[in-house]
Amino acid sequence: MIYVNEAADPRLDDFRDLTTADRRPDRPGGRGLVIAEGTVVVRRLLASPYRPLAVLGVRRRVEELADDLAELTVPAYVTSSEVMAAVVGFHLNRGVLAVADRVPPPTVESVVADARVLAVLEGVGDHENLGSLFRNAAAFGVDGVLLGPGCADPLYRRSVRVSMGNVLRVPFTALPDWPRALLGLRRRGFTVAALTPRPDAVDLRRLPDGATGRVAVLLGSEGHGLSEQAIAAAELAVRIPMAPGVDSLNVATAAAVAFYELTALAHPGHPAIATPRPRQRTDGGTVGQ
Amino acid sequence: MIYVNEAADPRLDDFRDLTTADRRPDRPGGRGLVIAEGTVVVRRLLASPYRPLAVLGVRRRVEELADDLAELTVPAYVTSSEVMAAVVGFHLNRGVLAVADRVPPPTVESVVADARVLAVLEGVGDHENLGSLFRNAAAFGVDGVLLGPGCADPLYRRSVRVSMGNVLRVPFTALPDWPRALLGLRRRGFTVAALTPRPDAVDLRRLPDGATGRVAVLLGSEGHGLSEQAIAAAELAVRIPMAPGVDSLNVATAAAVAFYELTALAHPGHPAIATPRPRQRTDGGTVGQ
Repeated sequence: MIYVNEAADPRLDDFRDLTTADRRPDRPGGRGLVIAEGTVVVRRLLASPYRPLAVLGVRRRVEELADDLAELTVPAYVTSSEVMAAVVGFHLNRGVLAVADRVPPPTVESVVADARVLAVLEGVGDHENLGSLFRNAAAFGVDGVLLGPGCADPLYRRSVRVSMGNVLRVPFTALPDWPRALLGLRRRGFTVAALTPRPDAVDLRRLPDGATGRVAVLLGSEGHGLSEQAIAAAELAVRIPMAPGVDSLNVATAAAVAFYELTALAHPGHPAIATPRPRQRTDGGTVGQ
Repeated sequence: MIYVNEAADPRLDDFRDLTTADRRPDRPGGRGLVIAEGTVVVRRLLASPYRPLAVLGVRRRVEELADDLAELTVPAYVTSSEVMAAVVGFHLNRGVLAVADRVPPPTVESVVADARVLAVLEGVGDHENLGSLFRNAAAFGVDGVLLGPGCADPLYRRSVRVSMGNVLRVPFTALPDWPRALLGLRRRGFTVAALTPRPDAVDLRRLPDGATGRVAVLLGSEGHGLSEQAIAAAELAVRIPMAPGVDSLNVATAAAVAFYELTALAHPGHPAIATPRPRQRTDGGTVGQ
């Protein structure tokens, strides 16, 4: 723990003015560092493949992280909440931050190799929706996220925060050659299921048998939905049953419902995420498993 | 359509300084008027039981609402986006607003009477989560929302906006006498199912037969979850199956998953929201319905 008293201290430069921290013309690609806010997300960052550069926080919060920091050679700067506010540019409720270097994105091959359930995104350009979607992907045991065209950067500060740090846990990478790459996923044994409100899409509850192995859920932006080309390249169009006259769901919410249904199908033996449904009797009652 | 050129025009007073519009010491209870932003939500307001007082927008947006306004005697003020910004206090992308009077909340009796699925909330104090939850309730055909202690006001501007106006469509009211009122719901034939991450809760996919009639889903705040008393007053504790080591879902997202599952059970014949699942054969394959 290194005590710092001056907001101008140059060792705190990577924490400076967080509202513009995602634009760093001085860094590769002009992209910002990975910034984690709050104990939970900082902890997740420290446990991730991202190499932490420094931690900054008020004493109480940094002390909470003592075990996580013990085996790392990361400077942990401790200061007052006033100095922190002066550095980051606003009052930060969460009281602790960490910054890390980006790492080169994994190959598509490595994200796909052992995956049972993937989320494949097109045009999810909103950082909060993207972060929420990663949070939901982690909750339901989705194995990876592939980013088609028009997607936001999951490592933007806002995405990291809204995801509760799950962008640092769920592997993701860009999927080039769109939408042809979807055919590649199908060749690898994935049922590519495009989520769309189209009335002729298959009800999510009535997927055909073949869809119960490896599944890639294709999700589009809330505003425009999936492109025709993407839907055409998918094997199935799937819809979430909804009440008449209702707008589409938020994309992260729709994703959660799809993940809930599909991870159970793709991980039939998984005790936590996929308790099998009871078999139904002809009369609509249920029988034990 | 009434053209207005001056931001100071007193006829626009109800649209003034929207960031503080939820606090109106001059009005009953100090609560603000109902404010709808954007064509979709304004349309929903005009079709709701709330009595619209006025519409304000740029010409193009107000013209889009011509049919909706045709049979109403509501003044529609048309102005420039600059004057609008000066009135509301910031630049408003959506270009049109409506204000309406609040109405007295319905009785619990009237919300509950014909409902098959209810959402019952405890401590959902965040206006955005509450708005999202109403949006999801509308999407899955939830019949009403009962607000236990500690809930935010669904008619706050932010809730109205995030709900996409669905707070104006899904009936809601306060549920006093907490948590004893939950026993009242059970006496009326509702299975009161408390959603909680507790490991000993029943998997949402394996609800007992009795839970397939009228269901009241009990949802707590994201931070603290449901109170012990509320869970004790429920008939069932139900959990959404999740991957190990994951935080709870956002409350509105968890609600969406629960609504998705439970509305299908409670509306077995509903063509839009409740296509029955295919019955499963003993070997895990499916048979036709």
